[in-house]
Amino acid sequence: MADKVNLAEKLDSFTDQWAPRIVARYNDNEVRLVRVEGEFVWHQHDDTDELFLILDGVLDIELRDRIVQLKPGELFVVPRGTEHRPCARNGEVKLLLIDPKDLPNTGDPATATRAVEI
Amino acid sequence: MADKVNLAEKLDSFTDQWAPRIVARYNDNEVRLVRVEGEFVWHQHDDTDELFLILDGVLDIELRDRIVQLKPGELFVVPRGTEHRPCARNGEVKLLLIDPKDLPNTGDPATATRAVEI
Repeated sequence: MADKVNLAEKLDSFTDQWAPRIVARYNDNEVRLVRVEGEFVWHQHDDTDELFLILDGVLDIELRDRIVQLKPGELFVVPRGTEHRPCARNGEVKLLLIDPKDLPNTGDPATATRAVEI
Repeated sequence: MADKVNLAEKLDSFTDQWAPRIVARYNDNEVRLVRVEGEFVWHQHDDTDELFLILDGVLDIELRDRIVQLKPGELFVVPRGTEHRPCARNGEVKLLLIDPKDLPNTGDPATATRAVEI
């Protein structure tokens, strides 16, 4: 059985950005921690929702019709099939994601950064 | 599309304990917030893991062979089929749970408190 996960300690164990780390598994999902800064690419996940929980910093999740601004302690679920672009325009953001296992972060295996377990 | 969720605001909107509120949905899962204090019942979920993330306070998750003590910012996944008993022995604990939709919190529909959406 996996041990408990201290999110801050896990985040302190790496510094690279846009490179998700898997810190826990829940059924067929991966709990991922990631540091981000700047703009990601527009993308969508056709077959799954994606859960964002902000731990530090301010993240804009751009949708085609609006921007959802998330602060620490705020959570948002991007519905499946919804184009979105995460943007951290005011410094680094640390966040928790939940995705199905092996989901490519860009929606496309060819351009994705594979999440690795820590 | 659901809006973002501010966890602290949602927690402030109710005071009863051991009564989970559904604040978001991710695929076929429910993100639940709950306030707890004292001891829950021993139980297990045969068909699903259960994700705990502590937001405030200190929660002991008793397992049959050890106790996992969780502080704010700590996460633990109780594997399916594992007997466990959450205990908040030092005051109220506020936490986030992820469970499959409609999962009874005690593992048994006859004794469960149904999670309601807020």
